[in-house]
Amino acid sequence: MAEREIFQDYMPGAVCFGCGENNPAGLKIQSFWEGDEGVCLWQPDERHQGWEGITCGGIIATLIDCHCMATAMATAVRNENRPLSSEPRYRFATGSLNIRFLKPTPIVQPLLLRAHVTEIKDARKYTLACDLYADNVNTVAAAVVVGVLVYRSDRPWEGPGGFKG
Amino acid sequence: MAEREIFQDYMPGAVCFGCGENNPAGLKIQSFWEGDEGVCLWQPDERHQGWEGITCGGIIATLIDCHCMATAMATAVRNENRPLSSEPRYRFATGSLNIRFLKPTPIVQPLLLRAHVTEIKDARKYTLACDLYADNVNTVAAAVVVGVLVYRSDRPWEGPGGFKG
Repeated sequence: MAEREIFQDYMPGAVCFGCGENNPAGLKIQSFWEGDEGVCLWQPDERHQGWEGITCGGIIATLIDCHCMATAMATAVRNENRPLSSEPRYRFATGSLNIRFLKPTPIVQPLLLRAHVTEIKDARKYTLACDLYADNVNTVAAAVVVGVLVYRSDRPWEGPGGFKG
Repeated sequence: MAEREIFQDYMPGAVCFGCGENNPAGLKIQSFWEGDEGVCLWQPDERHQGWEGITCGGIIATLIDCHCMATAMATAVRNENRPLSSEPRYRFATGSLNIRFLKPTPIVQPLLLRAHVTEIKDARKYTLACDLYADNVNTVAAAVVVGVLVYRSDRPWEGPGGFKG
């Protein structure tokens, strides 16, 4: 079996609080394919509490946001039938984050995220559904996230709006 | 002029990553009234980056979430014409978080949040509008947040659903 490819290994500029490997204060999430879903398994600790023993809503939002942008990137590359290591590299920015918190999320067990792209509009606007599980059974949060492809390594960067088509 | 009252000083259990004063890794936000708006001013640093020099979307979500729950609590108390220091104490849990990211948010300047309650339903479900400004002029994110009053110090706690009415 091939070694599991981590999406974040192909995302340049690794300072992100949620997913950057070079941010010592960060969550350092890792996302990978399991079938057609982007999956992430992550263990909270006491730094990540909101109420005592419960994961902070903002930390949950961070996990969902970063995991969805990574899954959007991996989906864009996969849809072109090429490996994550190939050029061009793509980067997505979050357009919107819509999260419903369904149950309190304890910090004791790993959290599991499952995300997939539900719609691609104008080739740049990706909508994703993402569910968060506290024990692989209970859905503790459900999100709809929009990511926009704002950078690709083969096009010049044109400012906050992203690259020129 | 009376000293400014900080909402978080009246929120028990201060371990929260976003707003707890006893979380060394946390953002330690402080919210207060400015007229009818709950306001928060907060300075990001390099730990809070997403892309280089830009504030992480998850950190922005954390600020919005915690500031809105504090503003919901302060609104509930203010609507009863009593000070934050009085009993009963109220605690809100986030029901949903809906954030639109409008512009990249640099880390160099303080971020300003302004929130207010737009609707109260069934005496427990508070909807808030919250805008985030990067320099007091540019709106960089806009959110609609729902908070649910799940705890009050004069009623017995009845599990995840909160107190019994």
